Amino acid sequence: MLSNTSRTEVKKAAHKAVLDMEHLHAIIDESLIAHIAIINESGPIVIPMLAWRVKEHIYIHGANNSRLLRSLKDGMQTCLTFTLFDGWVLARSAFHHSAHYRSAVVFGQFEKVEDNHEKNRLLNHFIEQIAPGRTLEIRLSNERELAATMLLRMPLTEASVKISNFGVNDDAEDVDKPIWAGVLPYRTVVGPLQACEDLYDGIEQPDYRSAYPNRWQE
Amino acid sequence: MLSNTSRTEVKKAAHKAVLDMEHLHAIIDESLIAHIAIINESGPIVIPMLAWRVKEHIYIHGANNSRLLRSLKDGMQTCLTFTLFDGWVLARSAFHHSAHYRSAVVFGQFEKVEDNHEKNRLLNHFIEQIAPGRTLEIRLSNERELAATMLLRMPLTEASVKISNFGVNDDAEDVDKPIWAGVLPYRTVVGPLQACEDLYDGIEQPDYRSAYPNRWQE
Repeated sequence: MLSNTSRTEVKKAAHKAVLDMEHLHAIIDESLIAHIAIINESGPIVIPMLAWRVKEHIYIHGANNSRLLRSLKDGMQTCLTFTLFDGWVLARSAFHHSAHYRSAVVFGQFEKVEDNHEKNRLLNHFIEQIAPGRTLEIRLSNERELAATMLLRMPLTEASVKISNFGVNDDAEDVDKPIWAGVLPYRTVVGPLQACEDLYDGIEQPDYRSAYPNRWQE
Repeated sequence: MLSNTSRTEVKKAAHKAVLDMEHLHAIIDESLIAHIAIINESGPIVIPMLAWRVKEHIYIHGANNSRLLRSLKDGMQTCLTFTLFDGWVLARSAFHHSAHYRSAVVFGQFEKVEDNHEKNRLLNHFIEQIAPGRTLEIRLSNERELAATMLLRMPLTEASVKISNFGVNDDAEDVDKPIWAGVLPYRTVVGPLQACEDLYDGIEQPDYRSAYPNRWQE
């Protein structure tokens, strides 16, 4: 169950608020990208970052000299937002047009993961999430690469989740009008793997795509 | 050509920086969602908002009592970020795994569009972008609905754009290894329209989907 703090209470459209961890986890796991805010002297900056979850923590990583990571590593208060767009709600009235979406707004502070062994484990966890089995095939990171990588962790304790999937909600006086109404659904799909041109001769194409529910054919 | 201010100079991975307006417009138009930051007493908050472009302005809208819009309407400095995720770059080494993406970070201040006629025109522009022809079919907004809607506008003058689409970039000593490498591409697709159950009898399904380049079949 998510905590309900002054920051996470959903004030607008409270019927879209969701309080269980399972939905929060699912939105983070599917999003891949977090939009993270830092504040500098001229105002806020929002940066998109790859973000992944292992149990009850969110992880982000990058080069040691990343401006964002250097700002966040000492525990600056921040906010990460994950959003999945699921479609357009096309109502009979212009006013009731809206969107289907799932979003999670997470508050907290990051801290550095210092130990190289632990960094390696958590980075490999991310690769396994993207391409199951791949960490058994690739050249894993060496000490120099791990030392050049900053990995930050935030506990997943304060968050608000909104899910909008209610379809069309027209005013009573519009429902009988001869106007088409419904939903235009959106989905993210993965395509066939595109191999490098300079691959080692005869190497077999892996089947990472079968782990994805939505695929396109070419 | 985009201005190059201290906020928009791309310091990391400068080869990914793009400076022409055409790419900026294309990313905004395809994104639909902007992640917008405001600052309150406990730190930054990042909120996802529908955002659209008409010529050289970005527009967002919502109810008059929206916390985000009320914070932004008087010209607070803010940042809007648009991100499109295009795929995973699966390198031979764990370290060189990365993503294909397009992102735009826009800085500026919003102002209110006050005139109802102008609000109506700009909101209808958004509906036409989603579903071409639809504003000729629906019940358009009345004065009361327009008065209940806050519409904010920001000039598109200060932004930085990054595009990463370079494929695998392994270290020389890894290229000859017998490891598969390549790209797992991502794409957003729209599905068949899902009609309301209580539609007016015999109403024809519109063909909004033909305006979208990527579609899935059911």
